[in-house]
Amino acid sequence: MTTHSHSVGVVTPQCAHFDEPLPLRSGSSLPAYDLVYETYGTLNAERSNAVLVCHALSGSHHVAGTYAGQAKSTGWWDNLVGPGRPLDTNKFFVIGINNLGGCFGSTGPRSTNPATGKPWGSAFPFVTVEDWVDSHARLMDRLGIQQLAAVLGGSLGGMQALAWTLRYPERVRHGMIIAAAPKLSTENIAFNEVARQAILTDPEFHNGDYYEHGVVPTRGLRLARMLGHITYLSDDAMADKFGRKLRHGEHRYHFDVEFEIESYLRYQGDKFAGFFDANTYLLTTKALDYFDPAYAFEGDLEAALAAARAKFFIASFSTDWRFSPARSRELVFALLHNGRDVSYAEIESDAGHDSFLLDDPTYHAAMRAYFQNIEV
Amino acid sequence: MTTHSHSVGVVTPQCAHFDEPLPLRSGSSLPAYDLVYETYGTLNAERSNAVLVCHALSGSHHVAGTYAGQAKSTGWWDNLVGPGRPLDTNKFFVIGINNLGGCFGSTGPRSTNPATGKPWGSAFPFVTVEDWVDSHARLMDRLGIQQLAAVLGGSLGGMQALAWTLRYPERVRHGMIIAAAPKLSTENIAFNEVARQAILTDPEFHNGDYYEHGVVPTRGLRLARMLGHITYLSDDAMADKFGRKLRHGEHRYHFDVEFEIESYLRYQGDKFAGFFDANTYLLTTKALDYFDPAYAFEGDLEAALAAARAKFFIASFSTDWRFSPARSRELVFALLHNGRDVSYAEIESDAGHDSFLLDDPTYHAAMRAYFQNIEV
Repeated sequence: MTTHSHSVGVVTPQCAHFDEPLPLRSGSSLPAYDLVYETYGTLNAERSNAVLVCHALSGSHHVAGTYAGQAKSTGWWDNLVGPGRPLDTNKFFVIGINNLGGCFGSTGPRSTNPATGKPWGSAFPFVTVEDWVDSHARLMDRLGIQQLAAVLGGSLGGMQALAWTLRYPERVRHGMIIAAAPKLSTENIAFNEVARQAILTDPEFHNGDYYEHGVVPTRGLRLARMLGHITYLSDDAMADKFGRKLRHGEHRYHFDVEFEIESYLRYQGDKFAGFFDANTYLLTTKALDYFDPAYAFEGDLEAALAAARAKFFIASFSTDWRFSPARSRELVFALLHNGRDVSYAEIESDAGHDSFLLDDPTYHAAMRAYFQNIEV
Repeated sequence: MTTHSHSVGVVTPQCAHFDEPLPLRSGSSLPAYDLVYETYGTLNAERSNAVLVCHALSGSHHVAGTYAGQAKSTGWWDNLVGPGRPLDTNKFFVIGINNLGGCFGSTGPRSTNPATGKPWGSAFPFVTVEDWVDSHARLMDRLGIQQLAAVLGGSLGGMQALAWTLRYPERVRHGMIIAAAPKLSTENIAFNEVARQAILTDPEFHNGDYYEHGVVPTRGLRLARMLGHITYLSDDAMADKFGRKLRHGEHRYHFDVEFEIESYLRYQGDKFAGFFDANTYLLTTKALDYFDPAYAFEGDLEAALAAARAKFFIASFSTDWRFSPARSRELVFALLHNGRDVSYAEIESDAGHDSFLLDDPTYHAAMRAYFQNIEV
């Protein structure tokens, strides 16, 4: 199917300030906060065509389009969102929000703590997926959106979409959960913990208050990202792309780049460490670890999902070993046992966890069809 | 089958000094060196019952038994080696050797560089699996062993066993390769690279010459080991052992141990960083990366293995995702295509890569049967 589609074009982020304190699951609260967000398309008169897109670990509110004068600033899910794209902005009003604790404009550890006049740093409270959902619900109130046509997200964003359907069942008509899981596995937590320890033990972390020292725990953040990247790719994708290709065509016997995969990981690590905030990385991995709707139901996922009223679209990717198809199927079965409507797509893909960001034709066709059937 | 078996008891390491320089694959050479080794059982009159056991990344010459007065100093493959055990020391003369570049007595980066009177540190040359085999062959000469009944090893040790059969085809009757692979995959190299970067970027690494600074890059080594541990275990084994068990029975929202898996990894990392040498870790992961018998044959593994004359025992474990059964099967097929005798055991085990160190009954029964059929 050839579809005439194009980018949403130049976009501008907006900022909403909230003065009402946000109670957090940890027992703490955030006294006041900003949420940075973007919108694409037009909210209809009935305010019934809004789709909230939740971001993953390193994502942001910048889902689609580019910023004026920055040709390379394309949003992270631009291939999905736009006029004529699977999430069609001719039909839907699409919203991207940077999570609290983030480092792209919403209040986070880098923001000024009103109590001290200094960056929050280590004093920034732990935020959970449910806290994010609560803060996003307030922004929906502000935008006059009582009910979302859909909440969509991949990976951690998928967990947020799930949390929306449980925390505000009447405010979500469709929960769209891509490449996610009902909770992290032990191995998932283990990888997060190594990444965190890389940051926490970096001498320039200064217990989270590195801003005041004029340094950044670059080494730790770089390692965390290198490790993360391995888990985002499939074994096969790495083998196809890099194999055992040598930088110099021969073994040089040194610790500089010998195999091309080393160069790729270092590049990704360096790039990420240059813009991402280490405290945000720590808080986000913790939010991932804690997410577990079944926790309050003694591990009974079916009981945990009984609150949901939405219809669901769930997708997984064959070579995703971070959140394998089996993890999505757990969700599917628990929802079906609750009598929910569930569309499930298990997509053949070589690209591992990262598949959810790519424009695989089968995947995008399934998303397109689902969105087309959503009534607004 | 109940078998009367016991430990080899108290053992004592020995040291062999070599004054003849060892040419290395890198083009460098080692002017003189020590090899530390242990033996169990008795060399028969025909000198035909010797079995060499090669160690993996963090192993040593101390394969079996305990040291006098150190009850907890059990060798790393003690469950396999001893009177009445699968590798029966009533029949075989078993030899364990610490690899060059190691940190348990054989010449390595912590040893004194005769040219400077200081520790080798960063000046220690890169050593490869083939270099280790050459050095081990010289020790066999010294011990008067012209031909080994078998060379046995797991993981990196299995690669050494394979290299023996290719480099000294007439000197090995049986190559026994457990939980190994003909070469590292891209993902394997990627994990090694993250571990190396953790060490190389540790401020206390001092470019490899940390001995002179009176410090040790503990943080980097600890991270390397934590990461390694994840790849040694299966997803299922971790889930069974730790699941999402909480240290305090509730979420505490801090960066201290929350989930028991975090505690386990930190403990393993701390313990390892307390005794292992960071330079040895670096050199050993590089030796793993470089190992690839097919490299000189344009990737043709069958051609690469044509030199082998030994019979083979190969074993893999169903949940080993570091070196999966598919990797062992590559070896099996390439050897069969060369007309070699190959026994292959694919063992059902929950324990991942670490399975090769455990005394799974099926696995040990297969090893026992194979050793029983070796004529001496």
